[in-house]
Amino acid sequence: MKIDATRLRRDIQENAQFGSVDAEEGRGRTVLTGSEADRRARERFVAKLEEIGLEVRVDAVGNIAGRWTPPSCDPDVAPVAIGSHLDSVPNGGIFDGPLGTYAAVETVRAIQNSEETPARPIEVVSFTGEEGGRFGIGTLGSAVAAGQRQAAEALALEDADGVTLEESLEQIGFAGSEEIDASEWDAWLELHIEQGTRLTAAEASVGIVESIVGITNCEVTIRGEADHAGSTPMYDRTDAITAASAFVLDFEGAAEEIATTNEAAVGTAGEGTIKPNARNIIPEEVQLQLDIRDVTHDTMDQLVDRCRSSLARLERVRGVETSLDRYRDSEPSQMSGKCIAAAEEAVADRDIDVIQLHSAAMHDTANVAAVTDAGLLFAPSVDGVSHSPQEWTDWTDCAVATEALAETTRLLATT
Amino acid sequence: MKIDATRLRRDIQENAQFGSVDAEEGRGRTVLTGSEADRRARERFVAKLEEIGLEVRVDAVGNIAGRWTPPSCDPDVAPVAIGSHLDSVPNGGIFDGPLGTYAAVETVRAIQNSEETPARPIEVVSFTGEEGGRFGIGTLGSAVAAGQRQAAEALALEDADGVTLEESLEQIGFAGSEEIDASEWDAWLELHIEQGTRLTAAEASVGIVESIVGITNCEVTIRGEADHAGSTPMYDRTDAITAASAFVLDFEGAAEEIATTNEAAVGTAGEGTIKPNARNIIPEEVQLQLDIRDVTHDTMDQLVDRCRSSLARLERVRGVETSLDRYRDSEPSQMSGKCIAAAEEAVADRDIDVIQLHSAAMHDTANVAAVTDAGLLFAPSVDGVSHSPQEWTDWTDCAVATEALAETTRLLATT
Repeated sequence: MKIDATRLRRDIQENAQFGSVDAEEGRGRTVLTGSEADRRARERFVAKLEEIGLEVRVDAVGNIAGRWTPPSCDPDVAPVAIGSHLDSVPNGGIFDGPLGTYAAVETVRAIQNSEETPARPIEVVSFTGEEGGRFGIGTLGSAVAAGQRQAAEALALEDADGVTLEESLEQIGFAGSEEIDASEWDAWLELHIEQGTRLTAAEASVGIVESIVGITNCEVTIRGEADHAGSTPMYDRTDAITAASAFVLDFEGAAEEIATTNEAAVGTAGEGTIKPNARNIIPEEVQLQLDIRDVTHDTMDQLVDRCRSSLARLERVRGVETSLDRYRDSEPSQMSGKCIAAAEEAVADRDIDVIQLHSAAMHDTANVAAVTDAGLLFAPSVDGVSHSPQEWTDWTDCAVATEALAETTRLLATT
Repeated sequence: MKIDATRLRRDIQENAQFGSVDAEEGRGRTVLTGSEADRRARERFVAKLEEIGLEVRVDAVGNIAGRWTPPSCDPDVAPVAIGSHLDSVPNGGIFDGPLGTYAAVETVRAIQNSEETPARPIEVVSFTGEEGGRFGIGTLGSAVAAGQRQAAEALALEDADGVTLEESLEQIGFAGSEEIDASEWDAWLELHIEQGTRLTAAEASVGIVESIVGITNCEVTIRGEADHAGSTPMYDRTDAITAASAFVLDFEGAAEEIATTNEAAVGTAGEGTIKPNARNIIPEEVQLQLDIRDVTHDTMDQLVDRCRSSLARLERVRGVETSLDRYRDSEPSQMSGKCIAAAEEAVADRDIDVIQLHSAAMHDTANVAAVTDAGLLFAPSVDGVSHSPQEWTDWTDCAVATEALAETTRLLATT
C-alpha cells in the first residue's frame, strides 16, 4: 500500500500540540487521561475519522472506534481493527501512541484511495489510558474492551485528587454509551515505537513482534532492628540494608543465570525505601519493588522462586524477617500466527529491513491478544529512548512502518 | 561524697517539665536550642546555680558557667569544671544531658555541705546545642568554648526557618558577653547516660570512659545508566542499585574484619537515595551516607581505604562511575589519665560495679579533651534506649553515678 508520508507526519505533529510541554531538547507532551489536552487530542482524532467517513463510537470508558464499511464487503462480517492510544506519560514523547493511531487513520485513507476491495470492515481504534499515569493502572481501556476488566470498576478508579475516571470522562465529553468489544474483531493490529534499541542495532525499519512479555511485580520487605550506628557492635546487628543488598545480588545473579538460556528474561529492583533512613541509625526495614519479565511464564515463576529461596537463606543467616508479595502477574502474550504471517507477507519482496523480536514493554495488544488474533509491529526508537521529550522516530521510519501496517491490514481485510 | 538522691531526682524531674511532650510510654521532652523550653530550662538552671552562691557567666553562644570559689582555695588557680547540656533532640528523653548538669549542681552542693576544703574553684557548666537538632551541628557550644569553632561562625548558623543562633539566643535572653574558655580549666568531668547496653550487660552502675570514638562520614555516589526495566537485557545493564548492593556488602565485610581486632570499629550505611526510584526503570544513581567510628583513627582510615578499593573494583567490573566524599572526620579522643585515675580511686573500696569502656557516641567532652584533661562517666541506660521518651536510667543508678562524679571532682579539686 502506498501511504502519504507528509499527511502522516502532519497528523502526528498537529497532535503533538495538545499537552505540549517545554523541553530543552526534543518535543514533549503531557496528555493524561481525562485532561483538557486529552479532550483536544480526542476531538481532533474523531474529526479526522469523520472526515474520511468512518462511523464513530465511544464506549463507557472512552475508547474510540471509527468503522469504515467498504462497499465491497459484507457489513456483517467481523472487522479488522487497527490502532493504538493517544495518552502519554507526564512529559512524554510525541510518538508513543499517536504513531499507531494516526498510522491506522492513514491506513484507511490509503486503502480508500486505492483500487482495493476489502472483504471486511476496518475499525480504527484509540484506547483510553494506556499509560496509567493518572488512574494508576495501564492498558485500562483495552482491558475493558477485551473483557478482562469491568467498565464499572475502571470508571470508579480515582486519581490523586479523588476524581474518578468516570467524572473526568464526563468532563471532557467522552463518557460514551456504545459497545466496543475486541472479541468481535476478526483480527487486531497495532503499530508502536519499539522503546528499545534492537531495531536500530539491526538497522531494521520494521519489527514484527512474536510475543509480549508477561510482567510480575513483587514487593519484598526485609526487617531487621534499628540500632545506634555507634554503640551496636558489628557482631550484634540485624541490619536490613546489608541483608537487602545480599538479596539484590542474589536476584541479579538468578536473573542473569536464567537469561543465559531465556534471553528475554529480566529482573530489576528499581525502587526501594529505607527506614528510618538516617545516617547514624542501622536500618530497620528495606522495601524493594521488583519487576520481572519474560516471554514464558515458567521462567518468571522460577525467578520468583529464586527470590523466595534467597529470602529464606537471609532469614537463616542474618536473622532478618522477610516477606514477598507477588501483587501483579500478567501472563506473556503470543501474537497470532495469522497476523505474523500477514506482516511477513506484507514486507516480503520489498526493500525493507525487518526483524522478528519480542516486546519487553506492555501494550494494549497484550489484552486484545487474549480474545482475538492480534499482531504488533514496531518502528525504530532513536537510542531506544521513550517516555521523554527526546523520544524520536525518524519520519522515513514512521512512513515505512505505516506502509507495513497498511499492507498487513489490506491482506487481513481481504481474506 | 554523700549526695542527696532525692534532691537530684527532683531537679531532673522538674527540668523535665520544660518542653514536655505527650508520650504513650515514658516521659519525653523537646528542648531545641533557643526555644521557649530552652529559656525556661536555662532560667531554672541559673536560679539553682545562684541559690548555692555560684557566680554565673554566659558567653556569646549561650554556654552557662557557674563558679564556686571555696574559701579554702586560691581563687586564681585553674578550676575543675563539671557539667553537660540541657538541650534535647525532638521528642527526646529526660536524662540525656540534664543528668550530667544537675549531677554537677548536686556535686557542688555535696562538697559545700561537707567538711572538704577544695584547693581549686569548681565550675558548673551547661553547654549550648549539644544535640544539633535545630542548627544542624552537634556539640556546638563546647566547640566554641574549646576554641575549635569561632563564636561568630556559630552565631551565624541558621535553622530551617532562617533564624540565626544569635537571634534565637537574644530572644531567650542568653546571648552573653562573658568568656568561658575550656583551656583555662585544670580538668573537666562529664556524667552522661551510656545510650548503650554495655553497663547493663555487665550489671555495672558506673562506666569510666577511656576514649570517645572518632566519626567519619562519607557520601558515596554510584552512577550507572537509567534504562527500561523490560527492554534492557541483563548483559547490557549498568545498574546502580546492584553495584551499590555489592558496595554495601564489601563495606560490611571490611568493617566486620577490622572489628575482629578493633572491637569498637563500626561501619554503617544508614541512609540512601535511589534515582529515579521507579519500579520499571533500572536505577541511574544510588547515593549512600556512611558512618564510620572507632577509637583509633588509623582503623577509620583503613575502612575508608577499603571503601575506595571496593568502588574502584566496581568501576572496573560493573562499569559504574563512583565517588566518595569524606565530608566529616573527627579524631577519636582519649580521656586523660589523671581523670581516669581519679575516677578509679573515687569508686575503689566502694560497693559499686564499675567497667571501663569507650563511648560510641559523640559528647561535648570530646571537644574539651583537645584543650585540657577530660574525663567522662556513664550511667546505665535501660535497654540502651536514648533519644526517645522511653530513655530511662533508674534513680538509684543516677544517684550512684552522681556520687562517683562528686567523689572524682573532690579528688581533682583537692590536688
